[in-house]
Amino acid sequence: MTAENLFVFELLAPVTGVIALVFAVYLAFQVNKYEIGPEKMREIYTAIRESSKAYLIQQYKTICIVSAILAVVLYAAFDLQGHNGTPLVAVSFLVGALFSLAAGYVGMDVATRANARTAYAAQESLDVPLKIGYYGGLVMGLFNVGLSLLAVTGLYYLYGEVELIVGLGFGASLSALFAQLGGGIFTKAADVGADIVGKVEAGIPEDDPRNPAVIADNVGDNVGDVAGRGADLFESMTAENIGAMLVGVSLYAVTNNFFFVIFPLLARSIGIIGTIIGVPFVRARNWKDPMVPMRNGMIATTLIIVVGMYFLIDYTILSLNLYFAALIGVVASLLIFLVTEYYTSHKYRPVKEISESSTTGSAVNIISGFSVALESTALPVIIIVGSLLGGYHFGVLFSAETIGVSEHLGGIYGTAVATMGMLSVAGMILGMDGFGPIVDNAAGIAEMSGAPKELRERIDSFDAAGNTTKALTKGYALGSAGLAALLLFQAYLAEYAKEAGIDVSLVVVDLVKPDIIAALFIGGLLPFIFSAFAIRAVGKAAFKVVEEVRRQFREIPGIMEGKAKPDYSKCVEISTIAAQKEMIIPALMPVITPLIIGFLLGPLAVGAFLISATVTGTLLAFLMNTGGAAWDNAKKFIETGQFGGKGSEAHKAGVVGDTVGDPLKDCAGPSLHVLVKLINTVSLTFVMMFVLYGLQLF
Amino acid sequence: MTAENLFVFELLAPVTGVIALVFAVYLAFQVNKYEIGPEKMREIYTAIRESSKAYLIQQYKTICIVSAILAVVLYAAFDLQGHNGTPLVAVSFLVGALFSLAAGYVGMDVATRANARTAYAAQESLDVPLKIGYYGGLVMGLFNVGLSLLAVTGLYYLYGEVELIVGLGFGASLSALFAQLGGGIFTKAADVGADIVGKVEAGIPEDDPRNPAVIADNVGDNVGDVAGRGADLFESMTAENIGAMLVGVSLYAVTNNFFFVIFPLLARSIGIIGTIIGVPFVRARNWKDPMVPMRNGMIATTLIIVVGMYFLIDYTILSLNLYFAALIGVVASLLIFLVTEYYTSHKYRPVKEISESSTTGSAVNIISGFSVALESTALPVIIIVGSLLGGYHFGVLFSAETIGVSEHLGGIYGTAVATMGMLSVAGMILGMDGFGPIVDNAAGIAEMSGAPKELRERIDSFDAAGNTTKALTKGYALGSAGLAALLLFQAYLAEYAKEAGIDVSLVVVDLVKPDIIAALFIGGLLPFIFSAFAIRAVGKAAFKVVEEVRRQFREIPGIMEGKAKPDYSKCVEISTIAAQKEMIIPALMPVITPLIIGFLLGPLAVGAFLISATVTGTLLAFLMNTGGAAWDNAKKFIETGQFGGKGSEAHKAGVVGDTVGDPLKDCAGPSLHVLVKLINTVSLTFVMMFVLYGLQLF
Repeated sequence: MTAENLFVFELLAPVTGVIALVFAVYLAFQVNKYEIGPEKMREIYTAIRESSKAYLIQQYKTICIVSAILAVVLYAAFDLQGHNGTPLVAVSFLVGALFSLAAGYVGMDVATRANARTAYAAQESLDVPLKIGYYGGLVMGLFNVGLSLLAVTGLYYLYGEVELIVGLGFGASLSALFAQLGGGIFTKAADVGADIVGKVEAGIPEDDPRNPAVIADNVGDNVGDVAGRGADLFESMTAENIGAMLVGVSLYAVTNNFFFVIFPLLARSIGIIGTIIGVPFVRARNWKDPMVPMRNGMIATTLIIVVGMYFLIDYTILSLNLYFAALIGVVASLLIFLVTEYYTSHKYRPVKEISESSTTGSAVNIISGFSVALESTALPVIIIVGSLLGGYHFGVLFSAETIGVSEHLGGIYGTAVATMGMLSVAGMILGMDGFGPIVDNAAGIAEMSGAPKELRERIDSFDAAGNTTKALTKGYALGSAGLAALLLFQAYLAEYAKEAGIDVSLVVVDLVKPDIIAALFIGGLLPFIFSAFAIRAVGKAAFKVVEEVRRQFREIPGIMEGKAKPDYSKCVEISTIAAQKEMIIPALMPVITPLIIGFLLGPLAVGAFLISATVTGTLLAFLMNTGGAAWDNAKKFIETGQFGGKGSEAHKAGVVGDTVGDPLKDCAGPSLHVLVKLINTVSLTFVMMFVLYGLQLF
Repeated sequence: MTAENLFVFELLAPVTGVIALVFAVYLAFQVNKYEIGPEKMREIYTAIRESSKAYLIQQYKTICIVSAILAVVLYAAFDLQGHNGTPLVAVSFLVGALFSLAAGYVGMDVATRANARTAYAAQESLDVPLKIGYYGGLVMGLFNVGLSLLAVTGLYYLYGEVELIVGLGFGASLSALFAQLGGGIFTKAADVGADIVGKVEAGIPEDDPRNPAVIADNVGDNVGDVAGRGADLFESMTAENIGAMLVGVSLYAVTNNFFFVIFPLLARSIGIIGTIIGVPFVRARNWKDPMVPMRNGMIATTLIIVVGMYFLIDYTILSLNLYFAALIGVVASLLIFLVTEYYTSHKYRPVKEISESSTTGSAVNIISGFSVALESTALPVIIIVGSLLGGYHFGVLFSAETIGVSEHLGGIYGTAVATMGMLSVAGMILGMDGFGPIVDNAAGIAEMSGAPKELRERIDSFDAAGNTTKALTKGYALGSAGLAALLLFQAYLAEYAKEAGIDVSLVVVDLVKPDIIAALFIGGLLPFIFSAFAIRAVGKAAFKVVEEVRRQFREIPGIMEGKAKPDYSKCVEISTIAAQKEMIIPALMPVITPLIIGFLLGPLAVGAFLISATVTGTLLAFLMNTGGAAWDNAKKFIETGQFGGKGSEAHKAGVVGDTVGDPLKDCAGPSLHVLVKLINTVSLTFVMMFVLYGLQLF
């Protein structure tokens, strides 16, 4: 390679990053052009928008305080001790934390602009609301990918060393965990509270304006699903980039090919280009199911990326075997889509089984759903394992054709490239993910504003598609989180080797030793305890919302007849306070536990801890995400008239199942995605300290 | 040591084994002396007894067929290939399978003799029914411990090599898994079926004779809780003995002290003596809560064992440090008792929280219970980890004072001795475990036979105590299973080293390798999939029972007025057929999975698989056992008049929670105890094959 073409490629990442941001702004303007609708819609629109902003600002205050404290700790730990990096680790950390929040905020801002506009546009056609909803979601997707790429590229070009930007991953994952957890507690407290008193006790439908928690419920979609998931994928991409670059540094050292280091950034650029070119393909005509045009867009984007990756690899890291590794990642995301669809669509056995068992009451619905949830972990885990082994296999083949690269190093880089393949489609997926809460809100606004039946029917078909995309993208987010965590684990070992002054191929985390076994148990335990806290937090917060809704029904005369307006803001306030209070302890658990293990049992025990927590964290997250979505769709299937339809005993059981699944699929589950990466980024940041000061008691 | 005193000690194990059996027979005769009671009790007594026998015989047929096939496979694999052991592996396997069944059968036989006798004796006093119930349970406890000791000792003295008796552990665990799974599916199908139609739909109380599933429910206690748990602990003790002896062989090789090999057998002898001497202490006067005398007996037995262990170690393996390791095991069992009590008693926060949340309906009850279940995994796992590290620590100290013993070998033996310490109290605990289903049945018989109120009140206090002992002993069984599995894992590595011809201290299972990571994921996954199948089996079987009960209520005229007798046997038959059909696939999963890993990825990957499955298996089992018991007791707490009492909305929610917990705590959970050991014994049996024929694809 010549110096010039390296320079061109070095520019590619920042340039595509900027393009992503510019295109996101362009899409946001497109969304903003449409009308919000009549006064009634505008009123609800404003309430949701203001409350979402107020909540995020409140939450960001909390996160900023915690982050500032941690930044000081990091500064004291590293820089005052005279360790390498001067204040750079603390600075990276802060940049990660703030950018992650920014990505979440922008997503929320556009989503709360798009919701009423989507609803209102549905009065005339299906095409325009699809466009608004899809564009709205895509703003979050592109903004996220672009910002992550710019942050990593910027700091890396600035510092010149990948090690110094690991703090970026740590900051991003910590912010993301707070955002996902806080948002998750808020949204599910409001949702569960609204459902229990509204649907079950008072017998009024979903999104009924008489329900005092209905605005909080809609706010929750924006602060939980949009801002939370946005922060989740921002940190996933950031951490994965850093991990892959760290592995790339080892390869650069032996091959002198600098492309190994920046390849992850370039792969991300291809993803951005593919996502942008794919947008016009979401324009099929004459569809009834909104999934059809979105699927077209997805296919187009994927094909562009598959082709683009070929040329990129051909120009840079020069190995057809690594291209096969990347393809494995792309195929893995498609397979996870199929599996998730199987487990969460009413067309197949699992959801049918749950629906049918609802005829025997709530208990059997729960038993059956829990069994489906447990079972649904199998295929995704096998896909992850397959990608890992497949990527490694092609990496080994690549090492055979490349002088100086050991089998193991080649294999690890192969798995890294497979992970990049999987995450290359992230922008587009994130767009589909953002689509869900926008149309969910749109359906709520249509219902609350008493829009005409025709409009509501149109928007309901979007709502159903939104539920599907949310489940699919959650499966994808988790699958990619699992692979990203494994990559970070390899990066952790590489960093450990460097700090300990031994060759990375000689690092051994030996399962035979008691401290390693102990660390495996503690690692396995962490996701269980974390989930316990997250779920209990929702339970506690929901309990308070329930009491408030009951109080309003009791004390505000005329509320049930629609003559008096409920006090929506009180429910928002209660959910906000509860979420802020309950998110702190679980969010700090994954920060503190690896530090305790590292300082008491040493850096290798941390390695065992990380991998074990990744295994159980991934398993539990699949259980919760898929199980929750299956319960949800079983209820929806009954509502279409199956097994007695709405109002039947089976339906009541279905509502119980859905409510049980809610905190699992929208709070604990997605938070676990972040947890498995946060423990890795914390450990990666502190590995030097573990080597220097770890006691290694056993 | 001199030849004579070795000889004396060699006799100790078989002699105490025989004493245990003789004393068990003596206790059985004591139980049999009491009267069964009036005709109505006798009728129900006979129905339960006959059905339990019929079920076990049916189940044993299935198990014998599967075992015979596997024995042939083992014979073909090992003996025809000319590997060591001639037909001995297959013979050991068959002995293990059959003895395990025998231990279960005897327990069931005595329990079904003791139930009505306990009920009838309650008409006069509290002392006599306690005696009958406790003795009845203890027969199973002592018979189990004795039989296990005799089987291991007998085959070992016969073959002269510990390696050749690993098949015994495999056979015992396979039988135990079938027994626990089949019994668990049966009992919970009947229980859930009876509850859903009886309590929830028809509004008749528990154990009402009008309920067609009521006999099946009582039969279930005997074939699930008694025969199942009996087989579980039989294999736990057997496998633990073999594992500890294998580790002992390595120590014998370097110290020439034969006591290291037979110490596990001697520790078991001390346990038997302590259990027998402890019996008369269960004779407190003037108690109201039956837990008081049982606790006295437990304290006496524990103290005798603690003292006895001291002298045993002082005479044989000569290390105060190993004595401390044994003490750690004893303390661990007490701690697990305390923790289990905290999570399952209505006196403390967890059960109170579930009860209170029931006022907000079934969904919040389930959410709250699931959160408690997740949380309840923490302390037991920390206790297991603490015992492991503590035992290792004292083992290392022991190695420092013993010439030729490496740190690692000493440490492993230390953890083995801690496990023995924990399992030394097994006989007595198993007795308390057997007490539960006996008094549960007694309460059922009292209710069904329309016994006087005074008698029923007395027997109800036993039933409550029985629930407590069942929860406590399940916590103990699982804690000890976790430690036993870790011991088997070490034995597996030792055997691997031997077969591969390398020193055991050089065996490395390196987490850095992709095949090892893949095996960790698959290992973590297995307990999830297994549980999915076990729970779905209960759901399916319960569905059939529900339909049958509904049919009888509909088609048999006069059944609700108590004028016509329901067809009890039909429900027994349906549960039997369903259990036999549904248990096969999940029971074979833990046999086949390690073989696939071993032959495709090699013996070290199996090591990773084993430890990971042990971690998630233990976590899930604690989650299910404790969660299920907490739901159960929350319902009972509401029934005492809290939060609205019986018939309130909170109570309905409590019943839903209890029903959800049932298949978790009595089928999937306890089966996982067995699973974590079965995968180890299978692998231990096949390790030689993995070394010879494993492909090691990565």
